[in-house]
Amino acid sequence: MEKLNNFIEENKGRFVEELFGLLRIPSVSSKNEHKADMHKAAEYIKKSLLDAGAKTAEILPTDGHPVVYAEKIIDPSLPVVMVYGHYDVQPVEPVELWKSPPFEPEIRDERIWGRGADDDKGQLFMHVKAFEFMVKNGSLPCNVKFMIEGEEEIGSPSLGKFCEENAGKLKCDVILVSDTSMIGRDVPSITTGLRGLSYVEVEVTGPNRDLHSGLYGGAVVNPVNVLAKMIASLTDENNRITISGFYDDVVGVSQEERQAMGKAPFDIEKYKKEIDVDELGGEAGYSTMERTGIRPSLDVNGIWGGYTGEGAKTILPSKAFAKISMRLVPDQNSKKIDELFISHFKSIAPPGVRVDVRVLHGGEGYVSPVDHSAYRAASKAYEDTFGKKPVPFRSGGSIPIISLFEKVLGVKSILMGFGLESDAIHSPNENYPLWNFYKGIETIPLFYDYYSKEME
Amino acid sequence: MEKLNNFIEENKGRFVEELFGLLRIPSVSSKNEHKADMHKAAEYIKKSLLDAGAKTAEILPTDGHPVVYAEKIIDPSLPVVMVYGHYDVQPVEPVELWKSPPFEPEIRDERIWGRGADDDKGQLFMHVKAFEFMVKNGSLPCNVKFMIEGEEEIGSPSLGKFCEENAGKLKCDVILVSDTSMIGRDVPSITTGLRGLSYVEVEVTGPNRDLHSGLYGGAVVNPVNVLAKMIASLTDENNRITISGFYDDVVGVSQEERQAMGKAPFDIEKYKKEIDVDELGGEAGYSTMERTGIRPSLDVNGIWGGYTGEGAKTILPSKAFAKISMRLVPDQNSKKIDELFISHFKSIAPPGVRVDVRVLHGGEGYVSPVDHSAYRAASKAYEDTFGKKPVPFRSGGSIPIISLFEKVLGVKSILMGFGLESDAIHSPNENYPLWNFYKGIETIPLFYDYYSKEME
Repeated sequence: MEKLNNFIEENKGRFVEELFGLLRIPSVSSKNEHKADMHKAAEYIKKSLLDAGAKTAEILPTDGHPVVYAEKIIDPSLPVVMVYGHYDVQPVEPVELWKSPPFEPEIRDERIWGRGADDDKGQLFMHVKAFEFMVKNGSLPCNVKFMIEGEEEIGSPSLGKFCEENAGKLKCDVILVSDTSMIGRDVPSITTGLRGLSYVEVEVTGPNRDLHSGLYGGAVVNPVNVLAKMIASLTDENNRITISGFYDDVVGVSQEERQAMGKAPFDIEKYKKEIDVDELGGEAGYSTMERTGIRPSLDVNGIWGGYTGEGAKTILPSKAFAKISMRLVPDQNSKKIDELFISHFKSIAPPGVRVDVRVLHGGEGYVSPVDHSAYRAASKAYEDTFGKKPVPFRSGGSIPIISLFEKVLGVKSILMGFGLESDAIHSPNENYPLWNFYKGIETIPLFYDYYSKEME
Repeated sequence: MEKLNNFIEENKGRFVEELFGLLRIPSVSSKNEHKADMHKAAEYIKKSLLDAGAKTAEILPTDGHPVVYAEKIIDPSLPVVMVYGHYDVQPVEPVELWKSPPFEPEIRDERIWGRGADDDKGQLFMHVKAFEFMVKNGSLPCNVKFMIEGEEEIGSPSLGKFCEENAGKLKCDVILVSDTSMIGRDVPSITTGLRGLSYVEVEVTGPNRDLHSGLYGGAVVNPVNVLAKMIASLTDENNRITISGFYDDVVGVSQEERQAMGKAPFDIEKYKKEIDVDELGGEAGYSTMERTGIRPSLDVNGIWGGYTGEGAKTILPSKAFAKISMRLVPDQNSKKIDELFISHFKSIAPPGVRVDVRVLHGGEGYVSPVDHSAYRAASKAYEDTFGKKPVPFRSGGSIPIISLFEKVLGVKSILMGFGLESDAIHSPNENYPLWNFYKGIETIPLFYDYYSKEME
């Protein structure tokens, strides 16, 4: 422990410099214009892993952006931990709201600012540095593999096939992931549940061109007004989703479980203040934590149509669009939900418009058991470094690939995330506190120790 | 008549060239970046009027874009016709849908293509050329004034004050306007009614930044979902506007008047085909022509919020916006409707969001009597050049300043529009058929003749 702390203390500056190199690469997976950047980021990770002590590292093609794979096998009879992470990041729009340019990382107020600072370049880099320590210190207690992909932010469309085709190479006993948040800096937590995702784009077409809203207004069906009515009707007055069959496969959570979850520390006033809202909302009959943890939700992620520039333009628009996503809980299946959505949405279109729905992205939810050896190991590691036992916690986010790992590789994942809600991932001014970055590097080697002991 | 036709035939090419010079100036009144272009367009009009034979022409400042004023007084005892028009144009977005650049006019298929080709540069220019003919031919039968403004497309915010301050100079017996459409090329018509307008922009604010839609989705009120619900609730299942008090001042139209209006030629299948929709919509209990002519309407002109780029971004947006306009009929007052809208819209905002409403633009409706001397003169002029009596017709559009002229100057306006619905005004690919352009130049001098005789 002292060696580890000394190592961190002595190398702090270098760790940040190395991470900055990665953060400077605008590896936005959803945009074609960044294709070359994806390769640059993959190369950067590969080199970082070799420098840290990986025996081999390679960039493996997929149907989309490549996967960086590396390993260090010290003894085939020992267990294998596989670290999963991703080098791709979310888009940065609206870029004018960033206080410093998203791909020019800097330190302010003891935080690293930049796109990917937390999600997931910063968290991923903790594993690279923890690994470097264990190798240099000669204390690596088991075998390690790294699988770092470039398509997490677009739903990992290629990774399922990649895992199937490389199942032998990817064989492991547990998958270790840092891509989630803690409840708070003082409330260490381990994510035991994730929601699934069904993400669609809808297009409503009215007349064949933008019309003069005076000459035609009142007589021609307006696709923006229609889209508003269609979206409005997707949730009822209790904020339940109205799509027929939507809740059919939702696994209920027992009253005891709900009571146990209700004991997790949660300061609702602080939560509201942090995002500056007077009131929260959501499905009637559930608490805030339950609404994100155990219940599905439906959000419009973006909407556009007609004239959106300065001043007034008197048109009746030809088209309206929205990006709509649904977060899913076990045992909802994202493909089934896609289909329910499409058929429902088309069925509610009124005469006078045509409707098109495109599925953009999806994946399944996940629940991880707290009696798993890796959970116990992670719990002990946090207890050592945070001085208190971590809370098991169901996050509202989605890492669709996690449920796929279980299905394809037959392995559970353990979600040791060190982020905070204030890290503003997916938002302008994403950041990652240095404290969390170093605390992650300190906690990870302890996980390896405890896990190896659990597996003896 | 023969002299007039010869004049047009001999000068066709020059007329188009001169109009092109005006069309090349991007005088978009709603955008600050075009401020210099507004002055350029005003100068162009001033010079055109002097060249055509105006005794004096000047560019007069207003609180906004300037007014071009010109006159030719031949005998103070004769009546005064004042031509009103505007040199400003609508924005051109979405510019990628234009087949030729909006400010590079060209002739294709016997039409002039470009922003303003019809509305209103093309129609305004017919008056300049008809005036030129009457002056050169020595046949001008009365006095003429021109008042050409630069803010019609943004609701003429400065012209009311301008008219009040220049009431003496603007004294006239009738105002002549070509800024409307005919029912069809074979169905000449004179617009006898216009709708008023109330145009607002709404802003719904939820959390202080875009949030991760997984971590927060289901618990935090989403401003886009809220805006959709608010817009949806503005009209009921019969497409009646739900704003309390909205219909209070709507003047009903008698069954006889509705029957007379129903006799105006209107081919609903052609109308639907032209805009490529299967069905029309609108307020229950009214025909298509009634829905635009005698009933108010509410349209979203534009909507935006959240992520609207390529691919999927999983955010719960901080803000959502919409531009919403209501077309009004006599005796609705736009300022009263603005206030009803604001108080209604704020009242329906749910907890968890803040709502702001900004009034962008507005004006009152207008009804012009068919027993007015100027209407009779216009009717005879059309009958001579089109070979048939024009149909009186209530347009759904708005020229807010027309009702203001009546209020401030005490003068009726006569709306001799030569446009067609297919001219796509306010849309990409605005155009104006050469046939209509020349037909207008041919008809206008006849109006002056008949009107002067009516006034003897």
